[in-house]
Amino acid sequence: MSIITLTTDYGLKDHFVGALKGKIISEYSEVQIIDISHEIDPFNIAEASYIISAAYSSFPKGTVHIIGVDMESNKENQHIVMQWNDHYFIAADNGILSMLSQKILPQKIVVITIHDRLLTGSADLDVFVKVACHLARGGLMNIIGREINTLKQVTSFQAIAAEDGNSLKGNVIYIDHFGNLVTNITKEYFIQIAKGRPYEIELKTKNIKTILPNYSAIATSEKYPIKSYEGEKLAIFNEAGFLEIAVFRSNPSTVGSASSLLGLNHKSIITILFR
Amino acid sequence: MSIITLTTDYGLKDHFVGALKGKIISEYSEVQIIDISHEIDPFNIAEASYIISAAYSSFPKGTVHIIGVDMESNKENQHIVMQWNDHYFIAADNGILSMLSQKILPQKIVVITIHDRLLTGSADLDVFVKVACHLARGGLMNIIGREINTLKQVTSFQAIAAEDGNSLKGNVIYIDHFGNLVTNITKEYFIQIAKGRPYEIELKTKNIKTILPNYSAIATSEKYPIKSYEGEKLAIFNEAGFLEIAVFRSNPSTVGSASSLLGLNHKSIITILFR
Amino acid sequence: MSIITLTTDYGLKDHFVGALKGKIISEYSEVQIIDISHEIDPFNIAEASYIISAAYSSFPKGTVHIIGVDMESNKENQHIVMQWNDHYFIAADNGILSMLSQKILPQKIVVITIHDRLLTGSADLDVFVKVACHLARGGLMNIIGREINTLKQVTSFQAIAAEDGNSLKGNVIYIDHFGNLVTNITKEYFIQIAKGRPYEIELKTKNIKTILPNYSAIATSEKYPIKSYEGEKLAIFNEAGFLEIAVFRSNPSTVGSASSLLGLNHKSIITILFR
Repeated sequence: MSIITLTTDYGLKDHFVGALKGKIISEYSEVQIIDISHEIDPFNIAEASYIISAAYSSFPKGTVHIIGVDMESNKENQHIVMQWNDHYFIAADNGILSMLSQKILPQKIVVITIHDRLLTGSADLDVFVKVACHLARGGLMNIIGREINTLKQVTSFQAIAAEDGNSLKGNVIYIDHFGNLVTNITKEYFIQIAKGRPYEIELKTKNIKTILPNYSAIATSEKYPIKSYEGEKLAIFNEAGFLEIAVFRSNPSTVGSASSLLGLNHKSIITILFR
Repeated sequence: MSIITLTTDYGLKDHFVGALKGKIISEYSEVQIIDISHEIDPFNIAEASYIISAAYSSFPKGTVHIIGVDMESNKENQHIVMQWNDHYFIAADNGILSMLSQKILPQKIVVITIHDRLLTGSADLDVFVKVACHLARGGLMNIIGREINTLKQVTSFQAIAAEDGNSLKGNVIYIDHFGNLVTNITKEYFIQIAKGRPYEIELKTKNIKTILPNYSAIATSEKYPIKSYEGEKLAIFNEAGFLEIAVFRSNPSTVGSASSLLGLNHKSIITILFR
Repeated sequence: MSIITLTTDYGLKDHFVGALKGKIISEYSEVQIIDISHEIDPFNIAEASYIISAAYSSFPKGTVHIIGVDMESNKENQHIVMQWNDHYFIAADNGILSMLSQKILPQKIVVITIHDRLLTGSADLDVFVKVACHLARGGLMNIIGREINTLKQVTSFQAIAAEDGNSLKGNVIYIDHFGNLVTNITKEYFIQIAKGRPYEIELKTKNIKTILPNYSAIATSEKYPIKSYEGEKLAIFNEAGFLEIAVFRSNPSTVGSASSLLGLNHKSIITILFR
């Protein structure tokens, strides 16, 4: 059975997501459609990049991922398919896939060229639906486009070490439902620069000196109940492999969150110092 | 494979939507359930009308559409099924289906009469589930109700041309996730009244003189990047065939939207002048 | 066909829900996944308890319910499976299942002990996925854990009658999408204490003397249209069997709701007096 996932900024109030699913089912009734998110901040390709790179690996190889963010084709943004790590990604070439392609080289990239084969009045979405169903059925990439070698790159997604190797700067790329701050500092890059040295994550309040293996590890003492640790700040590498600054059991609408408590927001800079 | 779609004002926080799906699956496990929207403004039948009329055509013929908005049966609102354009719509007869039936005549309408055949304690929703599964299995409409000829009409959904034919008045019936304003002026009606004449869409700020084929068409010059057009207002006929006043790449929570920037809201009047 | 339902506080913006579904499908591709809610207030086990107890009975026997709220395993919260009323519930033993187990005795409870059988780096969610798919395939509970006899209890979920039996105190445990107030007073318990006597639900404004069979029953007179009853307060036992204080056709974002109009909120006390 084939799977198509959806990551868009359409929201859930309008009919767009339902209509998209109707079109997919009309084209290929056996496919399984799974929502990743439809609440990407409108036209925010950094958020879309993070979400798809955090989610894709939970799906079987061969899954087709549609990314419907800033997807209208125009003189700057061509529609592309990228085969990468045995998954397929359909998107506009606006930088959205560069977070993935910076980590591992794509297996194949094509610019979609089937636009003139569709009915008059077809929209960009119809192109994505046709291509997704073609791939989900096991169709070849060559039939739907022309191979290219490079993607549009967005370098702001990368964390950077200082020249002397004694510090590392990244920034907040995503704030999750709990108000936790996801940075673009990956575990791999951290280990590579840290070389086993002690470190401090600089924050306006007290610095964090230990990155925990999971949230509950904040409860270091057997003497106190878990509840007594609520509201403490902590850092972990999240499941997607990115450094996350969190507040234990936060709730943005009541007790506050890492974002509100630490005064950090989208694009805020996070610095790690090594000794 | 049969499809049942859901359009409700239940929201996604409560258990209502999950429970509804559980009931459908319990009754007919092979059916495929697709959400259109559960974020219809509570009891807003104009919104529900627009959403279902914009979404239905993306689904295969024979699809059964449940509309759970203002659906409690009472002395004024009977439960009905309308077969229309080879789709089935289950709703309360509160005007919600009049936007569809004003465009094309229904094939058949029945008042549902199976309420007394259900278990004591069954709710309105159980009736809809039973009827939807019956139709999804290919059951006949006559078995579940008594045929009627007319629906409750809500005329406020229609745009109107001035008597001299030199102007057209519609109003905003829906504000989408991007803050774009959907009016009740259809492309067909516009063409019929415009008769090829030049036109202006009256706005508090500068009037719009051209309805574009798509959003990106706002970028008329090759000299400037797409990004430089962000925030410009424009008009298109959307995929559902309705005139939409939009702002290019709008984001209601940051740069603003057509609704906030133009001071227009639900029910605001939109006038088009012809020369 | 087997069903797995999901009730979490993950929200719908992040990739968590999509990734969870991807993991389930990867493990057991034939299973059907149905969302109950992902908008549980973060770490709010009272809300999660109410939602799952209101929703489960709409699903066929044998359904597996994953409850992903406050689920990180730690020294206080073990991962458990409860077989109850022929359904399976997977959760942390944090009190979330006590609303169910107080009503009917569980058939079997096990503490999950498969954590060491999973790959290094597996998260709490992976444990739930493994267990859910095992049960959905018809696997035995004994294989995945060690049987226990009792669950952590949260007694604050229970309404209490006064010693003289002349009044009953409960509290608001949930506020739904329409702003209606769900209390922990069940129909069964009310009948047991009321013994057929007249009653009054005490409110700051006028007391309610009749619990209605459904919302529309507020329209008692044939003389006035339904619309004239909008905004009136009422009480019903909802489909889940709990006393609900509602406002007829309320809309929290426009005309207000029971919560805003009556000044009641989460945990507010509701008293019923008997004569």
